Parts: sequence; C-alpha cells; structure tokens
Amino acid sequence: MGDKKQWVYVFGEVKADKNLLGGKGAGLTEMTGIGLPVPPGLTITTEACNEYYVLGKQFPPGMEEQLMSKLKTVEQQVGKKFGDPEDPLLVSVRSGAPVSMPGMMDTILNLGLNDQTVQGLTRATGDERFALDCYRRFISMFADVVMKVERSKFENVLHRHKQRMKVEFDSQLDVESMKQVLLDYKQVVRNTTGQPFPQDTYQQLMMAIQAVFSSWDNDRAILYRKINKIPDELGTAVNVQCMVFGNMGSDSGTGVAFTRNPSTGKHDLFGEFLVNAQGEDVVAGIRTPQPISSLETELPGVFEQFVNTCRNLEKHYRDMQDIEFTVERGRLYMLQTRTGKRTSAASVKIALDMYEEGLISKEEALLRVDPNQLNQLLHRQIDPEAKLNILAKGLPASPGAATGAVVFDADEAERLGKAGNKVILVRNETTPDDYHGIVVAQGVLTSRGGMTSHAAVVARSIGKPCICGAESISINYNLGQFTVGGVKVNAGDIVSMDGSTGNIFLGEIPLVDPTSSQELEKLLGWADEIRRLKVRANGDTPEDATKARAFGAEGIGLCRTEHMFMGQDRLPIVQQMILADSIEERNAALHKLLPIQQGDFYGIFKAMEGLPVTIRLLDPPLHEFLPNQEELVVEITKLKVMHGDHKEIAAKENLLRKVRAQSEQNPMLGHRGCRLGITFPEIYAMQARAIFQAVCELVEEGCRIIPEVEIPLVNHPNELKILRKQTEEIAEQVMAEKGIRFDYSIGTMIELPRACLVADEIAQDAEFFSFGTNDLTQTTFGFSRDDAEGKFLAHYVEQKVLKENPFVVIDRSGVGKLMRMAVELGRKTKPDLEIGICGEHGGEPDSIEFCHLVGLNYVSCSPYRVPIARLAAAQAALAK
Amino acid sequence: MGDKKQWVYVFGEVKADKNLLGGKGAGLTEMTGIGLPVPPGLTITTEACNEYYVLGKQFPPGMEEQLMSKLKTVEQQVGKKFGDPEDPLLVSVRSGAPVSMPGMMDTILNLGLNDQTVQGLTRATGDERFALDCYRRFISMFADVVMKVERSKFENVLHRHKQRMKVEFDSQLDVESMKQVLLDYKQVVRNTTGQPFPQDTYQQLMMAIQAVFSSWDNDRAILYRKINKIPDELGTAVNVQCMVFGNMGSDSGTGVAFTRNPSTGKHDLFGEFLVNAQGEDVVAGIRTPQPISSLETELPGVFEQFVNTCRNLEKHYRDMQDIEFTVERGRLYMLQTRTGKRTSAASVKIALDMYEEGLISKEEALLRVDPNQLNQLLHRQIDPEAKLNILAKGLPASPGAATGAVVFDADEAERLGKAGNKVILVRNETTPDDYHGIVVAQGVLTSRGGMTSHAAVVARSIGKPCICGAESISINYNLGQFTVGGVKVNAGDIVSMDGSTGNIFLGEIPLVDPTSSQELEKLLGWADEIRRLKVRANGDTPEDATKARAFGAEGIGLCRTEHMFMGQDRLPIVQQMILADSIEERNAALHKLLPIQQGDFYGIFKAMEGLPVTIRLLDPPLHEFLPNQEELVVEITKLKVMHGDHKEIAAKENLLRKVRAQSEQNPMLGHRGCRLGITFPEIYAMQARAIFQAVCELVEEGCRIIPEVEIPLVNHPNELKILRKQTEEIAEQVMAEKGIRFDYSIGTMIELPRACLVADEIAQDAEFFSFGTNDLTQTTFGFSRDDAEGKFLAHYVEQKVLKENPFVVIDRSGVGKLMRMAVELGRKTKPDLEIGICGEHGGEPDSIEFCHLVGLNYVSCSPYRVPIARLAAAQAALAK
Repeated sequence: MGDKKQWVYVFGEVKADKNLLGGKGAGLTEMTGIGLPVPPGLTITTEACNEYYVLGKQFPPGMEEQLMSKLKTVEQQVGKKFGDPEDPLLVSVRSGAPVSMPGMMDTILNLGLNDQTVQGLTRATGDERFALDCYRRFISMFADVVMKVERSKFENVLHRHKQRMKVEFDSQLDVESMKQVLLDYKQVVRNTTGQPFPQDTYQQLMMAIQAVFSSWDNDRAILYRKINKIPDELGTAVNVQCMVFGNMGSDSGTGVAFTRNPSTGKHDLFGEFLVNAQGEDVVAGIRTPQPISSLETELPGVFEQFVNTCRNLEKHYRDMQDIEFTVERGRLYMLQTRTGKRTSAASVKIALDMYEEGLISKEEALLRVDPNQLNQLLHRQIDPEAKLNILAKGLPASPGAATGAVVFDADEAERLGKAGNKVILVRNETTPDDYHGIVVAQGVLTSRGGMTSHAAVVARSIGKPCICGAESISINYNLGQFTVGGVKVNAGDIVSMDGSTGNIFLGEIPLVDPTSSQELEKLLGWADEIRRLKVRANGDTPEDATKARAFGAEGIGLCRTEHMFMGQDRLPIVQQMILADSIEERNAALHKLLPIQQGDFYGIFKAMEGLPVTIRLLDPPLHEFLPNQEELVVEITKLKVMHGDHKEIAAKENLLRKVRAQSEQNPMLGHRGCRLGITFPEIYAMQARAIFQAVCELVEEGCRIIPEVEIPLVNHPNELKILRKQTEEIAEQVMAEKGIRFDYSIGTMIELPRACLVADEIAQDAEFFSFGTNDLTQTTFGFSRDDAEGKFLAHYVEQKVLKENPFVVIDRSGVGKLMRMAVELGRKTKPDLEIGICGEHGGEPDSIEFCHLVGLNYVSCSPYRVPIARLAAAQAALAK
Repeated sequence: MGDKKQWVYVFGEVKADKNLLGGKGAGLTEMTGIGLPVPPGLTITTEACNEYYVLGKQFPPGMEEQLMSKLKTVEQQVGKKFGDPEDPLLVSVRSGAPVSMPGMMDTILNLGLNDQTVQGLTRATGDERFALDCYRRFISMFADVVMKVERSKFENVLHRHKQRMKVEFDSQLDVESMKQVLLDYKQVVRNTTGQPFPQDTYQQLMMAIQAVFSSWDNDRAILYRKINKIPDELGTAVNVQCMVFGNMGSDSGTGVAFTRNPSTGKHDLFGEFLVNAQGEDVVAGIRTPQPISSLETELPGVFEQFVNTCRNLEKHYRDMQDIEFTVERGRLYMLQTRTGKRTSAASVKIALDMYEEGLISKEEALLRVDPNQLNQLLHRQIDPEAKLNILAKGLPASPGAATGAVVFDADEAERLGKAGNKVILVRNETTPDDYHGIVVAQGVLTSRGGMTSHAAVVARSIGKPCICGAESISINYNLGQFTVGGVKVNAGDIVSMDGSTGNIFLGEIPLVDPTSSQELEKLLGWADEIRRLKVRANGDTPEDATKARAFGAEGIGLCRTEHMFMGQDRLPIVQQMILADSIEERNAALHKLLPIQQGDFYGIFKAMEGLPVTIRLLDPPLHEFLPNQEELVVEITKLKVMHGDHKEIAAKENLLRKVRAQSEQNPMLGHRGCRLGITFPEIYAMQARAIFQAVCELVEEGCRIIPEVEIPLVNHPNELKILRKQTEEIAEQVMAEKGIRFDYSIGTMIELPRACLVADEIAQDAEFFSFGTNDLTQTTFGFSRDDAEGKFLAHYVEQKVLKENPFVVIDRSGVGKLMRMAVELGRKTKPDLEIGICGEHGGEPDSIEFCHLVGLNYVSCSPYRVPIARLAAAQAALAK
C-alpha cells in the first residue's frame, strides 16, 4: 500500500469507526471482531465516497486495486471465488452511512450471478429452482437500482407468467417457467436500456458500488438528511459481503429482531422471522412474517444460539440492539447490528433496567433517554373510560393517539398538513418516497406490513402514532376510499387511531391528559439530583399551575396577565378601559377589573404556595383587545350603501376611529409592554394592586407566597426605575391598608437587544431577569415570527441558509451572544441576580443546555414540557 | 467661614465659573475682574439653589449670614447702605442659570424701597417724581413676581389714574397723582394677598431670592429646559446688584447691543438705546428705541467708551458678545455680557472674520459654527425678491417655509399626507391627539396659543414650520373654512407660511434653492482639510446625485432602488411581477423592468463619475407596491351589496386574495431585503444585470465608474454568500456578453442586531459594510418608528425616559455598542473593510462624532445635509 490511502478494509481489520466504515460496516466489523457468525466481507470507506464526489464521480485512484486484493482475502475466508462458474461466491452490496438512514439508500443482493455462474450455483446447492430464483431477484434488483429500469416492468413479467401458469405465488412457478421469466427479464433490460444485462461479474460489482455511492445524492436521501439535519458531507460506505441464503428451504429464513421490546422496553426478544425468504421480503412487507418466538419451536438450536448472541451483543454494546440475521440451512448468520430505535416509554424502561442489570451507570441511564422523545409520553391519550366502537384493528406499530382527515397520498398529506390541517395518512404500505407525508401527518395507517415495516420504523423514530397491517381494510386509491366490513370511508372523513393498541375508530375520540409513569418518575428523580438548573412552568391559570406542579415545576416562571383580559366576562370591561375618553372613565373600568384580576392571582399563588410565581404585567398592544378593523369597515360600508340608521353608522364610525387610532404598522415593535405601563400608569397600578391584595389574602390564610412582579419589554433603565417606584409605592399602600407585611421582588423581562447591551444598568433596579427569547429572537434577527414562518423561514431551513429554526432552537451565535452578554453584565452589577428564561426555548433540550452553560438559574416552559426540561437540564449538567 | 461651604461671592471675588455663578454672574464677575464699569454686587451660587431644593425649599444654613456679610462689602464699595432711610442702596435681583434661558425666569428691580427709603431716594437724587416712579415700578414687579398678584391689576390702577388726569403716558402723571397711585398699589397688594406690602427691606431681599430660586421650577422654565434639553439639576444662581438708573434724565438711558451684527455677521456694533428709561421699558416695547448709533451723536464720550469696552470684551472672550448696559447721568455701566446668539450666516462670517483678525485659530473657527444651524442656510426659503401680500400674521413659532392645502383635521391631514399631498394643518390649537397630523403636514398654523403651545413645541421638535396665535384668523370647523379680514379660505385651498417671520400668504409662494455662500465654502474647505470621515450622499436619482456633488458629496452612500419601482410608468409592471402566477410571468415583467432600471443606474453613475456609488438591491416588502387591502375590501363589499357584476367581483376577490397573501403582521420584520433576494432570486438577478449593463455602457463611453452592490437586511453569512455568488455570476455573464471588464464590489447593509453580533463571519463575503441605523435602531430598541413617534416616543423624550429620540441621535450605549462591535469584528476579519453609515444619523452632528470615534470610513446623508456633515466631521476630528 505504501503511503497511499487505504480505501477498503476487510471486516475486522480495523477499529469499528462509524465515521470511516459507516454504521453497518462498523457493526459488521465489530461483530466479526468479537467472534460472532458474520459472513465475511469488506467495507469501502466513506472517505472513498467523498473522494468519488470530489473527483466528479470517479473512483479514487487505487481503490479498485485495493478492492480486488481485499476481495481475494474474503474469497480465501469462504473458500469460494467471485465469478467462479463452478461454485461462485455471491455478494450483497449495501450502503451504510455513519448515521442510520433506513431504507433511504440502495441495496443489491445476489451479485455475481450471470448465465454461467447461475449454473455453478445450481451445482453447488443442488437446487436449480433456488439458483434461478436468485438470478431472477438479482436481475430485477440490479436493473432497478443500477440501471434505472422500473421495477414494475419485472413485476408485470412475473404476473403474466403466473397467470399463464395459473398459480398464485412466485414460489409455485416451476423451473421451466423460471427460465422463461429470466429470458423475459433480460429482454426487458435490453429493451429499456439498449444494453444487455451485464454478464461480467467484476463489471456488476463496480456498477453496484457506483450506484451505492450515487444513491447518497438521490432525492430521497437528500430529503431525509434535510429533515433529520444530517450533514451532506458524511458520505456513505459500501459493504460487500458474502451472500447467505434464507431462501434455501424450511430450515432457512431471515429475520429482524430487537434485543428488547422497542415499544414497551420490556426485556424480551422482539422481532419477526420469515421462513424460506430473503431479507427484502420482510422489509417490503409483502408477506406477513411470524413472531420471533416461532423460531424457538421451528429451529430450537438456532434460537438458543440467537438468544445468546443477542445477550452478548447487548453486553458488548451496552445498549438495546436492532439486529438483522439470516438462517441458511440451520446455520445462523448475523448481517447487521445497530442501536435500536425505540419509543420514549421503552427508552425510559430500558435505561432503568440496564442500570438495574449493572450494564450502565445512573448517569449513562439519564443520557440514554432523548428528552424530546418524552413528548410522546406527555401528550394526550385516548380516554380509557370512553366506550368506543372499533372500526378496524391492526398492529400497534408506534404508540400514541391521533385524529385527522383520511388522506391516501403523501403529497396531499404534505399539502394539507402544511396548511395546518390534521391528517391521517392511509396506505397499503409506505416507501421512503412517502416520508414527507408521514412527517406532517398526525398518524400513519397501513393495510399491509408488520412491526418492522417501513411505516413502523419511520413512525417510531419520529414519534408518530402508527398502525400497520390492518388487513381488514381495503383501499381503493382511484376512488379515494377504503372499505372495512361494509363501511365506506372517504378521503377527508375523520378517523382516529390508537397506535398503542392498534385500534382504529370512525370520527373523533375523547382524549385525556397523560399521567407520568412510575419509571419516568424514577428517572426524573435521578435527573433532579443531578441538574443545576431549576425548572419552572409558564402558566396563566390555577389549573395550569396545579398541572405544572404535578409535573415537577418549581414555580411559575411566566404568568401572562393578558390572557386573563380575554375572558368573555372581562373583554367588554377591557374594551371600555381602552376606549375611555377620560382618565375617570378608564379608572372606572380598571376598578371593575381589579377584583377579577385579584381572584386570578389568588388562585395561581395558592396553587404554587411556597414556590416563586413571576407575574408579568400587561404586555400586548391594546388593539389586540379591540374589534377587528376590517370587519368594522365592511359593516360600515354595508350600512352606508344600504342607507342604514344614521345613529348606528355614527356610533360605528366613532368606534372605527378609535380602533384606527390604536392600530399599528408593526404591533410587535409598538405601543406595548412597559411602554403602556409608562404612558397609562393606571393600568399597571391596578395590576400591582391586584397582585399585592391577593398576596395579603393568602398571607392572612397562613400561606407562604413568593410573588415576583415582572416588567415586560424594558429597553432602558429609566423605564424600570419609573415602574419599580410606582410598584413599590403600591406595595407600601397595600401593606399599610391591610396591616400586613409581605416580601416581593421586582424584575424585568430581557427580550430586546438593547436590554442585553445595557443589562448592567438595568440590573440596578431588578432583582431578577427573565429572558423572553421569543421576542429577543424576533428583534435580533428582525424576523416577525407570524410572517417569517409562513413566508421564508421554512425555505431558509430547507435550503440550509439557517441550520435551525431559531424560534425552536436558540441561535447561540446571535441571540445567545446577547444572552451571554446580559448575564455577564447583569451579574457584574448584582452577583446574585436571579436569571431565567421563559421563551419557548425554555422547554427545548439544546436550548436548555445553552441556558445551563451560560449560568442561568432556571428555565420555564409549558407544563407538559417540565419533565423534558428536568431531564435535559440533568443531561446538560452531565455533559462536559 | 471655617470649613463651611461658601454660598455667596462678591463680583470679582472668584474665577468666573458659569456652573457655580450662572452665566450672568460669571459675566459680571469676569467684567469686574478686567476692570470694566460694573455696578458692584454679589452672586448666590447655583449650589445654594440646589441645596435649597434638597432641603425642601429652605435656604442652606449659613447662606443668610454670608449674604449679609457680602452685602456689607458691596455697601462699602458704593458708599451707600441697603435700607438706609437717608440714601438707600437699591438693588436688582436677577436669576442666572449656567445655560442661558432668556425670559424664562424672574427679575426684580429697585429692591430696597419702602415708604421711608423712597423719601431718602428723593433727597439723594433731588427728584421726587423719579423716586416715586421707582417705588411704583418696584411694588408692581415685586408683587407680581414674589407675591403672585396679577400685573393687570396694577395696570388697571394706572389706567384709571391716567384717565382721571386725562393724560396719555405714565410720565405725564404728576407727583400727587403718583402718590395716589402708590396708595392704590399698596391697597391692591393688601386686598389680593391679605398682607401689606413688605416694608422691611431685608425681608424684601430674602423673599426675592426665594422667588428666583423657585422660578427655576416654574412651568415656563421646566418647559424651556425640556425643549432645549437642559438638565434639571443645574439650578440657577441669584445676582444681587446695585441699581443704576437709566431713567434719570436725558443724559441717562439703557441699551442692548451685539458687538457684531447677529443677523449678517458684519463687523458693526448692532443694538438699540432708549434715552431716560429703565431696561423693562425696552422689553415692553412701549417706546421705540433708537439705533445704537444715536448714542454717538447724543453722548459721544459715552459712545466712545462703549465702543472701546465692546472691543475689549471681544478680545477678552474671543467671541461676539451680547451686552446690556445703562448710562446714568452720563456714566456707562455694564450690566451683562454673554456670547451672542446669531443666525447661521452670521455664525459663519464671524468665525471667518475673527480668524482673519487673528482672534481665533482656524480650528477654533470651525468649532464656532453649529453644524445643525447650517440647516437654515440649506433649505428652500421664500424668495427674498418676491413681492408678497401677507394674509395674516402670527408668532414665528418654528422656522421654515411651507406651502400646502388647508386641512382642519389631523386624521384628514394624515390621510392626505400619506397619499403624497402637501397639507397645512390649521387648528385653533393642537393637542397630543393631533400629533399624527402634524407629522405628515408641511406646516402647522394655529389661531391661539403662544411660542410654547403644543403646536409650537411639537413642530420645533420635529423641524416643521409653525405659526401660532394668528388671532386674526377665525376658524369654522363645521364649514371647513377660516376667515381673515373678509377673505374666506376653504379646506383644500392653497396657503403658504413662513415660520421664521410668522407671515401667512394666500396661494403658493416662490421658494428659492439655497445657495452656499462664499464664506460657507471657505469654512467647509477648511473642514475638508481636517476631517478624516468621508461624506457621501443618499440619492436615488441623477438629480439627487448632481445636487449632492455640488454640495461636496464624495459619492453615493445609498441609492434605494425601490424608489425607482414607484414611478407611474413602472408600478403596473412591478405589480404584474409580484402577482405573477408563474416564474415565466414574473420573468416577463422583470424583463420589462430591466431597461428602465438600467437607465436609472446609468444616470446616477454618470453624475457620480469617478466616485463610488452604493446601490442597494430591493429592500421593502412586496406588498408596499400593491393596492390597499382595506380599500379593496370596501370596493368588494359595495359591489356585492349592490349586486354588481360577478366577473368584476371575482376579479377583485382574486386580487384581494393575492394582496392578503402578501400582507404581513409586522412588515418591518417580514419578507423583505435579502429574504426577497433569496426566495425570488430572479428579482435581484435582474437588478444586478441592470447595474452591470449600465456600467458597461459608461465604460464604453470612457467613464470611470465605481459601483458597489449592496445586499440589504443580512442576518447570517449564508445569506450574503448565496447572493454574492449569484451577483458575481451575473457580472461574469455581462462581462462576457459585452466583452468589457469592470471593477465592482459587493457588500452589505448592517442593520440588524444579529448582523453586528456575527460581523466577523459576514465580513468574509463583504468588501464593505454600511450601517442602516434606522432599522438597527428599530430592532435594537424594538421600536417601530411609524408607531413609536406618534404613540409613546414623544412622551418618552418629554418625560426624559430617554434623553434623545434615538431615531435622531445615535443611541451610543445600545445601538452604538452594537456598531462598535460590528466594526471591531468586521475589521478583525478584513482590516481594510470599508465601513460607512447611511441611516438618517449620517447627517446628524452628534452621531457623526460617534461615527468618527468608532472609526468609520464615511457617513452618507441627504444631499442638503452634506455641508453639515462635512463640518461636523471636521469638528469630530478636532474634538479630543
């Protein structure tokens, strides 16, 4: 080799490095290394793939020579020769990227067959029909993947022959028919491509490798990487492995298995086995496989060996494995192992169990669960008490409840989903081409395929409910309809599904709030021991507060008082206040609002007794509470055209004038937050009084209340100074009136760039800061969220102009830089300044890690995300 | 005194420190020190005033004792005693703040008179009538200022006596009548206040001092400080000075003078003199004073002494002085000197002359002219040659000339103004509710209110011409009409106004372009030698560019291409482009726009040949070019109610749908700038092609063109990378097509906080940065300028929540901090990065100083502000 780069490695030759060998190659090398029965083979590295693209789709110099040399080693290991007409070595050629992209790239089996070697295979196996069937599969697969001949053309040939022979299954075609099929297959290739099917096995191999390299850049793969944020620069490795055959009779077969139940986490082998079949038969979901337990009765020796292998793999990898294997004439071969995808419930249970089993530490257990995945556990589920009529039943492939309109097409699902509609994607089976539809659907329902079918794997990995193999339903794509037991369900009809039971229902079904499982509680208990960040909840009602506390919230980080202004009993008074012509009129309205607000605060404080409650004074611009301007204009126009009542017109025009006076070009940057507080001091005064009077009521009842009054949208220290003074005066007044002393603190939202830049000055009058990262992101980027997400932000993320949507994940280099500055400046003035975050980022794991890194005291998020935040905060503390 | 604080100083006792002694006190002390004839006196310091407020309106301990002791010194200097019934020392008591606040605070003359001392004064002067007149003046002045008795009550008494005696002037009242007047005056005081007029001269003095201290906080003074941005903490000093009498016969008198002409700057004494009068007679305007030259003939000796004194004062202060003086029986006394206010023309001429005279250096001359004042010289003015008939006259409340249609309602003014009409808002008075109308009007005219009325204050603050208190006009809102001297003026009629004179005209009046004077040219020439900042202009047309070049602009810093989209010939094509249903349709429209844009660029480049021209690609959101949504809704509603044509309705509804699709919640933060460039690449591609094709045309003509292509609203380096690549490709295409090579550069606006924060990354793909401080201020503060100025920003500035309107003066601690960061980061990546500013701040002197300090290469402003910027840039370079 000299100093030339090594592009090709035999399994076991090198350390199992995923980045170099891809996930599949690393798994095969690792299994080879620990002595498991892996058919010999070699891996062409991801570096070779990247170099291939650098060179304008040319193999790197030396790669072919190395391949030949390594292939010789493999030939020696199995004692067969590639292309040997007597006893040919056949190989599979599979892609394998560093990050799993299931089904996204291409695979070719049985490579090495041609008109000569197929005879050698017959001789070697003594089974001509088998050999011919292999050749048939190879031609169609190779022609499809490498030569871009449509697969349906081969299916048509096969269908014709089956009709001619009046048989139902491929396996019923006899040798003569198979020979005829092969001739027709080769004819299809010649007619479609103008080329004969390649007979040179070396040429076959190089074409296949090239096809796998090229598949890295096919549309499906690009889309998958986009959605899953996988860098384009990783490249794929290619694995060339000796074929073993699951289709050599009833003592052969192929299977996939998880070392534990990926749905529940239970410590049981979970998987499926298909007798006398090759891998593609299972994945395609065409034949419904048997549970893995069937292997125990049918091939007990193999089963025992398999169970032991699984145990060893788990011990070795210290995680649940997702395994592909083949049994060839009673002999077990391992074809793949990788860390298995699982539901959130399973993820929690497996982490806990593995700790109990001594496989992993507590810290590792915490790091094993993806906080984002907990979402699944924490969303609403079907009411177990509800009496429901089941329309149909399928396999419970991915848990969770969903309701939506039936859609039969992934493109249509995407269109409707992006427009904000809830849809259920219904297909016979799904393929990687349907991925964009699955992503936006509420749930996926297939009439065919098993628990490891494409739909099931994808749905589990992205946390969507999925039911597979609901065979009682019969889909007619042309009519846009499925029927089940005489019931017709049309596209657009509403159905519901429960991915945890496999039940399908007509219409909407009642959902209930989730309850946290014991396992989750235990894990979160560990998280609480380790995390440094406190976790609070955003909540505007006593109900929110109670729920949040049940989920482990350590206070309310944001109570938005404007939500209280929106109630049906309040809105008319609020409008009266806004439209007041005099300060007296405004005060009269505020006087009516005071007891209502006081009642709101009383309830929230009580629910959070002993914990801090941050109450933000009125934030949105006043026009949000007024009637819609355009609707008023329409009403007035109608009244005028139809010569309506003059008084009514005048009254409406007067209202319109006032609404117009309040309207703004850019309400987001307008007259809101503390700007309202400063120009209409009486509003904030009423709110402060309501807060402090509620505190007094509770103090009298013997409760410990920790109120934090928060001033929104502060820009300049003077704003806070003025409003702080007013608030303190009111606190003193209330204390004097009630004869009760109470503690409280005053602080500010930090949600404008300027506030971050002068945080040292602002901190002088603040006991706490709370980052409002929604608004801070809007102003730092100059993105109006309302407009950006619909107009250009999706395009930006898709085209990778931005790596992430900054409203979802904190933009560390921009917004984060400002936050870091605000923390440093604020603490320079007040070393013990309490700093939190209450934007939506407060419940997003990557952002929580950032909050940990910059030294915040707490994050605050929606009640349902509190467990996610608890776990994410612990993971942040564990990360180096 | 021991270690007690010194609150009182005799004139000349201490260094002339304005902050301690106030402006007047410092002037008197300085003049005393250089031996000018100043009546002796003392100053109570501003510190005493501040302490007075700190102590809750109590004199500081020790102040009274010090006052008595210093008063003794003064008595010794003049050889008279305060309160001496034989020959009383009389004093004036005057306020004097560190910053001149003319007429805003109170003055009392002739203090020390009572029923006894008035007889002593008679004896000492031998003039009983004079003594009685002094007492009369003192009572009314003291009662008015100190005891809050309305002055009109005294005027009524006097009027009654003049009627009774059948005389016309005060001076015609005889001694007996004067005695009667005095009795009645004292009765007025007793009746109004319930107290006798104070006879204790010491009590008089202390009451007067207290009144002056208190006048610091009267409404007039507070408002004046607000308007002129004078800190409230300065406090006022009090000057107690021996009276000298200009009303002691024909060899006496009083005068005011400027050492040079404050209007033209000519080196001539300029002022007025009134024989036999006290200062208040001049101010009251009852007798018309003579030009100062009259003194030369009447009192040649005094005149010569006065001329010498003026020369000495100029030499001493090295600036033009504004002087008050009195002649008592042929003897000259100096009562005040201060730096004289002057017009911009005078300011320039005086600076140049004083340099020529060797009084000041070139650098000092440059620092002597306030760049903001040049505005006066550089805006269109009423043609001084025009013969004009004045319709009415009011108070000249805010300078400048304006012409427009009469409008009586602020809403209507806003509607018409926003639609591009020129209007003059005419009201009896304005209130804060009229703000939105004032902002869009050309000028404001009120029939009531004075120089400090709402209209006047607002108009001055935003630089609009305003005339107040034009009482001869009578407004009838219902008829939409005002009348003046029989002339009826209806809403919609054109009127003109000159806010510098208070004159109102019917119809349009001829305005003339300002011409830069030779003097100004010379001064700006010096500025150019000294400044380091380059000065460019913002301009969108060849005319703008030509004008800017004439004013000394060194390039175009911002050419806004969207203004070119608004022309009547272009808008339909632009709308066609925006509403296109397909890319083909859009390209067809763009194809039509290309030659038009190319023509625009050709003209601008040509006008700026040899100088850089920065062209910003399309910036505003597309809906700005579309029909108004609400108007469409009204049209459709009308058509529907009246059962209009179905096809028309459908067409309009289709249009409405598209307009709605483009509309945004917060257009300022929406789909605009480079976001358009990235989502509709064909628009920027057309613009780049138009630029480069225009360059080619001119290069072929032998011109040297320096085009700079500017990408707006960049947030993330990827945005610039993508658009840079496209622009470069188009440049290469155009070069290849035309066979011409040309130079160009590509850069970006820095107008979002995020751009500043990641400026190092952005600089990698930019040859230049240009700060768009309008948008940067909007986003850093979270202020929508459209909304803020009308809704809360005026209130913020008035209430001193913010020191300045940040859209006028750069906010150094917030926005400026981001700018500094961007400059440092940008230059870290590219040390020779060219950085400028093109927001409105680029023409504002304080902001220009900041730009100099942070090391920008240039500022860019509107053509008329180029001279201002040249001078301000030189001053920045001269400041330490």
